[in-house]
Amino acid sequence: MTSFAISGVFSAAATPINADLSPDHGLLAKHCQRLLDEGCHGVALLGTTGEANSFSLGERKAMLESVIKAGVAADRLMPGTGVAAIPETIELTRHALSLGIDKVVMLPPFYYKGVSDDGLFDAYSRILEGVADDRLKVVLYHIPQVSGISLSVELVGHLIEAFPKTVVGIKESKGDLANMQALLKAYPGFAVFPGADPLMLPLLREGGAGCITATSNLIADSLRTVFDGHADAAAAAKVEAAQARINAWRNLSNSYAQIPTIKAMVGLKHGEKAWQRLRPPLVGLGESEIAALRPQLERLP
Amino acid sequence: MTSFAISGVFSAAATPINADLSPDHGLLAKHCQRLLDEGCHGVALLGTTGEANSFSLGERKAMLESVIKAGVAADRLMPGTGVAAIPETIELTRHALSLGIDKVVMLPPFYYKGVSDDGLFDAYSRILEGVADDRLKVVLYHIPQVSGISLSVELVGHLIEAFPKTVVGIKESKGDLANMQALLKAYPGFAVFPGADPLMLPLLREGGAGCITATSNLIADSLRTVFDGHADAAAAAKVEAAQARINAWRNLSNSYAQIPTIKAMVGLKHGEKAWQRLRPPLVGLGESEIAALRPQLERLP
Repeated sequence: MTSFAISGVFSAAATPINADLSPDHGLLAKHCQRLLDEGCHGVALLGTTGEANSFSLGERKAMLESVIKAGVAADRLMPGTGVAAIPETIELTRHALSLGIDKVVMLPPFYYKGVSDDGLFDAYSRILEGVADDRLKVVLYHIPQVSGISLSVELVGHLIEAFPKTVVGIKESKGDLANMQALLKAYPGFAVFPGADPLMLPLLREGGAGCITATSNLIADSLRTVFDGHADAAAAAKVEAAQARINAWRNLSNSYAQIPTIKAMVGLKHGEKAWQRLRPPLVGLGESEIAALRPQLERLP
Repeated sequence: MTSFAISGVFSAAATPINADLSPDHGLLAKHCQRLLDEGCHGVALLGTTGEANSFSLGERKAMLESVIKAGVAADRLMPGTGVAAIPETIELTRHALSLGIDKVVMLPPFYYKGVSDDGLFDAYSRILEGVADDRLKVVLYHIPQVSGISLSVELVGHLIEAFPKTVVGIKESKGDLANMQALLKAYPGFAVFPGADPLMLPLLREGGAGCITATSNLIADSLRTVFDGHADAAAAAKVEAAQARINAWRNLSNSYAQIPTIKAMVGLKHGEKAWQRLRPPLVGLGESEIAALRPQLERLP
C-alpha cells in the first residue's frame, strides 16, 4: 500500500447548536471523542457538514479550543480553515497550529467565481507563505457544487510541486470518480479522500487514502471496517457488507436536505436535541420530517 | 417621481492596492472624494468591484475608518457588510453605524447554495435583529452569478413587510430587467438600483431609484447627467448621449475580465499604479493587456 502523509477515516463532523444558535461546545467535544472511539482516525470538524462558514472566526477558534480542552488529542483533529479572504485563512490556520493541530482541510477563496488557475495558485501560495510553518499539512478542498470553485488536476500538480511537504492531499467532494482517478494517476503518494461515502471502497481499491465523509457521524465503525479490510481478500465479504451498510445510511441521509438530515439522524440515534438546529441560511428538519425519519432510521442495517 | 429612502448615483468603487497587497488607504480616500466631486451621490465601497470579500474584517473596518478620517462624509458612504457568517455581518454593520454610516449594501450568506427562501429570510432577520439599530437602512444585494444566491421577489416582499423601515432597496446585479420591473411593480417606493450601467436609464424611466455600478469609477459625471435629466424632456438628447457614453466605457471594461479592467482603466486615466493590482484569487491585467487597453481608452467618448 502506498504511504501517505495523511490517511484513514476522517469524519466530516456536524456541529451541535444551542437554542440561541451558538455552538454547543460540550456536546461537540463529546461527539468528537465518540467518533474517535467508534473508529475514526481523525475528525475533520468545521467543514461543509460542520457549517463552518456560518460561524465567525472567533466562534471557530473557540470550538477548536474547547474540543482540545475537553481532552481530544490535537493530532486527531483536521479542521477546515479556508475562508473567502486570504488573511483570515492564514489566521485560522495559524490558530490551529498554535493548538498543536498540524493537519487542515483548506477551501480556496470562494466568493468570486470563474477565477483562473493562476489566481487560485497565487491565493494558495500566499496563504501557505503567510502561514510559514513547516509542520503544516494541507488537504485541498474540492467541492465546486458548494464553493463554486473548481480545482483542476493541473492546479493541484502546480501546488504539489511548489509545496511538496505541505500540499499532501485533497478532499474530493465533487463526487467525480474519474477526477479522483486522474489525481491518483498523476500524483502518486498524494492522498485523495472522497467526500462521498459510496466512493470510499472503490477508491481505496485504486489507491485512495481513506475518506472524509459525513456518514461517519452515524456509523464510523463500518467505515473503519472498510478501511482496515479493503486489501484483505479474506475480509472481502465483511468489507462489502460494511460498505453496503454505509450506502444505506447515506441514502437515507440524502432523502431530505443532507446536512439537516445527517444532524437529525445523529440526534435521533443519541437522543440529543441540539442536532436538530442549524445556523441560517440552512434550516433544520421540521417535526413531521423527523417523525417520518425515525422509523426509517430504525430499519437501517 | 416616487420618493425613496435612498436614491441617486452610487459608485461601486474599486479598491487600490499596495505592492504588499494591503489596501492603499490614502488613494482609496482620494478616489472616494473624487467620485463625489465628479457627481456621485454616494460611494458604495467594499462591494464586489471593491473586492470586499477578499479583505479581512479588520482590513474592511480600517478602510472605512481611514476614508472617514480623510474627510469623506459618513452619510455619503454605503459600504457592503454582508459576509458568509451572520455574526460577522452583524459586526461589520454595527461597525459602520458606529462611524455614522447608516446605509449598507448587504449580501445574503453566500457559502451554501440552493438554500430556501425561509433560510434566507431567517438569516436576514437574525442579522437585522442582531444589529438592532433603527438608523440602519439596508440595500439587499442580488448578484447570483457571483454569490450563487437568488433573492426571489417573494423573499424581498417578506423582508420589506417584516422590516419596512430598514429594508429599503435592492442592488439588482443579475442584469435581469424583467426582475427589476417585477420588484418595482410589487413594491412601490422600494428602491431598485441596477448594478449594470446600461440599465440605468431604462429603469429610471420605469421608476428605478438610480444605480450602483462600476463605470462610475471612470465617468461619474455622465451617470449624474442621466440621473438628473432622465425625466426632463428638454434634456433628452443630452441624457441619451450620456447613457451612450456610459455604455461605450462599460463595453470596453467588459472586453477583459471586468474588475481588473475597470481598475486598469482608472489607473490609466489618473496615472496611478495601485489600480493594476488585485487581491488573489483575482488577477490584474498584464502589461501587454494594459498596453492594448490604453489606445482604446483614449478613443472613448
